[in-house]
Amino acid sequence: MFVSGGVVTGSIDTRPARVAAIRDALARADLDALLVSSLANVRYVTGFSGSNALLVITAKDCILLTDSRYATQVEEEVDGAATVRIESTNLWTGLWAQLGTLTSVERIGFESMHCLHCDFARLLEKGARWSWRPTTDVVETLRAVKDAGELAHIERAVAVAETALRRTVPMLRAGLTETAVAGVLEGHLRDAGSEAFPFPSIVASGPRSALPHARAGDRVLKTGDLVLLDFGAVTAGYCSDITRTFVLGRASDEQREIYDIVREANARASGAIRVGMTGMAADAVARDYIAGRGFGEAFGHSLGHGIGLEVHEAPRLSRVVESPLAAGSVVTIEPGIYRPGWGGVRIEDDVFLSDAGPRVLTGFPRDLHELS
Amino acid sequence: MFVSGGVVTGSIDTRPARVAAIRDALARADLDALLVSSLANVRYVTGFSGSNALLVITAKDCILLTDSRYATQVEEEVDGAATVRIESTNLWTGLWAQLGTLTSVERIGFESMHCLHCDFARLLEKGARWSWRPTTDVVETLRAVKDAGELAHIERAVAVAETALRRTVPMLRAGLTETAVAGVLEGHLRDAGSEAFPFPSIVASGPRSALPHARAGDRVLKTGDLVLLDFGAVTAGYCSDITRTFVLGRASDEQREIYDIVREANARASGAIRVGMTGMAADAVARDYIAGRGFGEAFGHSLGHGIGLEVHEAPRLSRVVESPLAAGSVVTIEPGIYRPGWGGVRIEDDVFLSDAGPRVLTGFPRDLHELS
Repeated sequence: MFVSGGVVTGSIDTRPARVAAIRDALARADLDALLVSSLANVRYVTGFSGSNALLVITAKDCILLTDSRYATQVEEEVDGAATVRIESTNLWTGLWAQLGTLTSVERIGFESMHCLHCDFARLLEKGARWSWRPTTDVVETLRAVKDAGELAHIERAVAVAETALRRTVPMLRAGLTETAVAGVLEGHLRDAGSEAFPFPSIVASGPRSALPHARAGDRVLKTGDLVLLDFGAVTAGYCSDITRTFVLGRASDEQREIYDIVREANARASGAIRVGMTGMAADAVARDYIAGRGFGEAFGHSLGHGIGLEVHEAPRLSRVVESPLAAGSVVTIEPGIYRPGWGGVRIEDDVFLSDAGPRVLTGFPRDLHELS
Repeated sequence: MFVSGGVVTGSIDTRPARVAAIRDALARADLDALLVSSLANVRYVTGFSGSNALLVITAKDCILLTDSRYATQVEEEVDGAATVRIESTNLWTGLWAQLGTLTSVERIGFESMHCLHCDFARLLEKGARWSWRPTTDVVETLRAVKDAGELAHIERAVAVAETALRRTVPMLRAGLTETAVAGVLEGHLRDAGSEAFPFPSIVASGPRSALPHARAGDRVLKTGDLVLLDFGAVTAGYCSDITRTFVLGRASDEQREIYDIVREANARASGAIRVGMTGMAADAVARDYIAGRGFGEAFGHSLGHGIGLEVHEAPRLSRVVESPLAAGSVVTIEPGIYRPGWGGVRIEDDVFLSDAGPRVLTGFPRDLHELS
């Protein structure tokens, strides 16, 4: 069964419905076509997972341009969902040629958030015979609502990540470097079936756990350290994203206090999040609790973000997001408290939102785990 | 010793010289300032390795904006090389405030190849009081010429990758999945000290080796397969990028013939590449040889690319590059032959170019290795 990009669920190919939804959006925006340059959006619509592509969607056509490195792969993955053109030099040269063959195409949307200025300049210069209109989130809005096949892929990615974490925890001990821990974790991720790493694994110990995006360095783990692991798996293109924070040895009272606040903030947000709530309101559930406990300044980042074909996608749970959460969203919930020089705690789960309420996909325990 | 971003060699901080070179370029282009949005360029100039930053360089100032997640990390990494501003909401909001404090700044360059259309629209709207000019390759041109410290980091990244490959090869055997092989390789990369993976490791076996960017999948290795490994390491931010292709069991005559052609193309290009040669001419050394042996159509990608803080950077070795190669460049040389349904061979080395000639940094044998 063909599952690249999660486009097939059982025997149902979901790509035609996605193309149809984009065509509806184009009609509403009075556009004749959409130029898709986001690779994640290309994958969502066509199944193609390569690193170089442009896609043109019109009321009648769906044309995918890529280069010769992907000649074999693209046919396997797309399998009829789009007309494939292999360009020998530059995709943009191919684009002008393809557009030239299309009749009744004048007003073309492009993805403002996925089009570099240098490419925008091409549109205005070489593509001067068409009228180019910036669009935002045409495909992303569809992607924010996962179908059953996509949810299954994310659940599998969560399971892979949790399996890897379960196998890694018993190996955590003083004397290992953060990088060595990352290697153990990533080896287990691969063994459990992860196709790739959705982002550079974070292993941050001791004071480095106060750096929310510390990656892994050459610091050696010591007894008494907070050890923060933030990582994910990828299956069929879909990501998971999990964080757990451990204490190496017995937790101090201060470590336990901070940990308990973060755990409670996570539990409150995971329990309270609902379809129709704004990203801002969801964020506030955790933020207000942490602030009420006196650590508001120490939680500097947003509560969470959507996951799917990308590890950061719509919707966002942050102080500035006023749009309501849609049924079918999958988001991270990841409050944290960070104290420079001392350390930090973050607990991150992946949560599926349906009209029936939130379902936490991550089953790994959230209790404070003191590693012996 | 502070080595993040390779900005310090022994006791010499190379960042002031980089800022000075950018200021020279700004003066020549009649610009008052440069807005740097490429994260690799930000790292090159300031040492900051975070994932969210804007940098403004004027004749007098060097101002780095990032968010609170990086509050601790940025001070450690930048260590006085720039004035750091932590923005609590949006870097662009902070940008307008910072620019407002600068006198004699009117004409500002922005990075056309690293500025999204949506951000370009911000420049024109919220930044309307300044005059914005697209620039290309201001920082990249500097980065194409590696200093001794940067070369040392790349050599270390090559050594880490080769150590990992040496430890992985004895474990290659029929029955393993490509993903499992990737896990073994990546574990060894971590053990040998790689900070991260510069790109998703490619493990492509049997017919999948004909897919030049196949990543790793669930195919099981079989006797008689070509097995292609394309991967790299990262140390102090600098990347290596290596490919070797093996045969599982005894090579067929056809496998041996193709392998020998690719090996010879690699050797010819590595031996012939010189400072001052165009990227096109370097590409042609390998391409003409492969074409002369009858496989020109089967080598669809470029000969190589620069490596450094990014795994694909200037200079490019391809059919369309007419600019000459600079002394101090580090490039990949990676010819390949790909036959859909049958398989492919690629052999990739990292090569340092000085006025004294090319020096191949990769020492791993290029002879056909039949895995028993």
